[in-house]
Amino acid sequence: MNSYKDFIALSPETLPARLGGLAALKQRIGADAKAWKTREVGDGNLNLVFIVEGPKGAVVVKQALPYVRLVGDSWPLPLKRSFFEYHALSRQAERDPGMVPEIFHFDAGQAIIVMEFLSPHIILRRALIAGQELPKIAKDLGLFLARTLFRGSDLCLDTKIRKADLALFADNVALCDITESLVFSDPYYDAKLNRHTAPQLDGIVKELRADRDLKVAAQRLKHIFAATPETLLHGDLHTGSVMVTAEQTRVIDPEFAFYGPMAFDVGMLLANFWMSYFSQSGHETAGNRASMRRYLLKVTVDIWEIFRDEFSRLWHGERTGILYQRSLFEDQGDMLASEQALDLVLHGIWVDMLGFAGVEMHRRILGLAHNADFETIADADLRARCETKALKLGRHLAVNRSHIHSILEVNKLAERLEKDIVT
Amino acid sequence: MNSYKDFIALSPETLPARLGGLAALKQRIGADAKAWKTREVGDGNLNLVFIVEGPKGAVVVKQALPYVRLVGDSWPLPLKRSFFEYHALSRQAERDPGMVPEIFHFDAGQAIIVMEFLSPHIILRRALIAGQELPKIAKDLGLFLARTLFRGSDLCLDTKIRKADLALFADNVALCDITESLVFSDPYYDAKLNRHTAPQLDGIVKELRADRDLKVAAQRLKHIFAATPETLLHGDLHTGSVMVTAEQTRVIDPEFAFYGPMAFDVGMLLANFWMSYFSQSGHETAGNRASMRRYLLKVTVDIWEIFRDEFSRLWHGERTGILYQRSLFEDQGDMLASEQALDLVLHGIWVDMLGFAGVEMHRRILGLAHNADFETIADADLRARCETKALKLGRHLAVNRSHIHSILEVNKLAERLEKDIVT
Repeated sequence: MNSYKDFIALSPETLPARLGGLAALKQRIGADAKAWKTREVGDGNLNLVFIVEGPKGAVVVKQALPYVRLVGDSWPLPLKRSFFEYHALSRQAERDPGMVPEIFHFDAGQAIIVMEFLSPHIILRRALIAGQELPKIAKDLGLFLARTLFRGSDLCLDTKIRKADLALFADNVALCDITESLVFSDPYYDAKLNRHTAPQLDGIVKELRADRDLKVAAQRLKHIFAATPETLLHGDLHTGSVMVTAEQTRVIDPEFAFYGPMAFDVGMLLANFWMSYFSQSGHETAGNRASMRRYLLKVTVDIWEIFRDEFSRLWHGERTGILYQRSLFEDQGDMLASEQALDLVLHGIWVDMLGFAGVEMHRRILGLAHNADFETIADADLRARCETKALKLGRHLAVNRSHIHSILEVNKLAERLEKDIVT
Repeated sequence: MNSYKDFIALSPETLPARLGGLAALKQRIGADAKAWKTREVGDGNLNLVFIVEGPKGAVVVKQALPYVRLVGDSWPLPLKRSFFEYHALSRQAERDPGMVPEIFHFDAGQAIIVMEFLSPHIILRRALIAGQELPKIAKDLGLFLARTLFRGSDLCLDTKIRKADLALFADNVALCDITESLVFSDPYYDAKLNRHTAPQLDGIVKELRADRDLKVAAQRLKHIFAATPETLLHGDLHTGSVMVTAEQTRVIDPEFAFYGPMAFDVGMLLANFWMSYFSQSGHETAGNRASMRRYLLKVTVDIWEIFRDEFSRLWHGERTGILYQRSLFEDQGDMLASEQALDLVLHGIWVDMLGFAGVEMHRRILGLAHNADFETIADADLRARCETKALKLGRHLAVNRSHIHSILEVNKLAERLEKDIVT
């Protein structure tokens, strides 16, 4: 059964006629669809994205395509990812209200989600490349991580609900496959879709692909990724999946959502701040970025700190699931047993988070999907110098994750790499 | 939708009339159902089990009941467990041919599985209580563990298949709930369904329930149990789920099957041999059991050794899944990278296996579902002495699982406990 057999991709020309009858849209944009202005703005790797504006307001229309936009129709990709994105957005809206765009309409058959137009928000990654220091992101993202990860797990949720939802999302196979291949394996051998800044990085690429400890660590992390459905993850939480103003932070694009290890979202997000840190020296033509570098490291410290604090607060206040039951701890008057278990859980997230951060840094430089942070550095020699530092930090984190104790330690190493003290 | 609305429990009287029309049965028992002899032999906790004999042969008919037989209809239990048992048996038959009973007929709506009548097999637990030393069980069970666990995982299977199957079995919520509650939580607080040999064990029960490290370890193991669907587990692999002759070993009753951590089946099974070991002194009225004790410890050594060897053989020969890909290791000429990864995976199974063994020993003595090994010791003082040793070994394994290196070490401690050198 193919529920997508009548799928037709939208275009700016056809969109008003096709969606003009929807009350949810008319109410927000204006009743006369002929007066709507539609433009396609998708710059991601996978989908069509339209902004539709009219006299009363604007909405975003996102439509999945049956292939990977970045690669073309030689790489088919199920339209059902739109279904997973819709359901993930719904759950995230419950677990951390106000942190994801509001949904106005979902059409499963056409793989269309109509949602809130965020304005004047810009993509966080673009802001960081431009050298903007956003004051609220650490707090907002730290809370988002703690709330979505905790509240979607057996620490909080009825396990019947988690198990049914896990089964629902288990069908997001194609998008998990992208992560499984592109993040955990491809960077470490001569995979077809890889590319890197060449010839400058050829030496370190060869070194990393011959690095036994690194490759075993990456595969161990893949094992954890594939077989630890603790909670509903965003699944692709990098700085390109966050939209910001100075006052607001919104998380978008959870089409990679699936049940996985809590540490994955945390590690991927922090890795993108560390990559931004190393990319700053590639963007100093318009001014020194020393303050921006300090800011970025402070963001990583603050995200982890706020995540840890909020996770602990939820542990004490909302631990209603089957795991680490109060009946064994608090209800017997043993508060320290609960603290001991909390430390154990947070330690596990910490160790794996560092590993996920490490491989994320590698795949963004060696794999298929690169980061604009580095890609927008036109001078290939300069870009390669930035990328090399990130590759080295990534290797260090992936291999030594059990022996690192704080973000400050990571950041000190990042600074020594940045200053060429460690090479 | 209730697909069981027409469910009617079988009885020896109604069975021939109800199943007499099935060709698969007539062929094996005899065409004239009136000549069938039917007796109910279920001694488990959950189901009806009939042996149906006729002129041509015999079959077993197993039917789930909509409640827990051990407790009564105050504890409803979904009939769908029969569906999971059927599917688990099918997969096990593929992964280790000949080790599970052949299935002749499955009726999902009536929760009936008709299968091979194993004769003259007896339940392994009964044989061990009687002091029989079965020569083949270690090899057969070690191979069964390695083959079913490896071949059902992302080490071997296409991950699409595992993910779809994981979703299918995710609905076995009620039976997972039994394990989650009865194994990992109930023994460690004053849960309603608990019972233990009293007053003899009151002291150690109080001690264990106040044992912070133990309770945190048990809950950490529950976390691993609930959120590590590496492979399709049997889910209830104790010596009561194994049928034996001197020549043959068969594994039955996988209705608790679900996707979980590989270590669970291994640990539960070994725990039941260690419990048998400690129970032997309760059965020495008819003769000394020193040889039986040596035999049982040897079985634990051999099961782990054979499991490890077969798992390694499959690692080298059948590693076709997405994890620890050959493209990163062997295909690059780095055989030792593959060995390093194998050690890592086996070490993980080892550590968690010891923990699962530890809590299994506790729940069989402190929880709802006790073992005949101990239960058949009529003298309560003697029984309590046996049980105390098992409880102590269980605590040691659950808490110290990261610092124990071999089954021999475990067995030396078991012997010291048995001889009251350690108390």
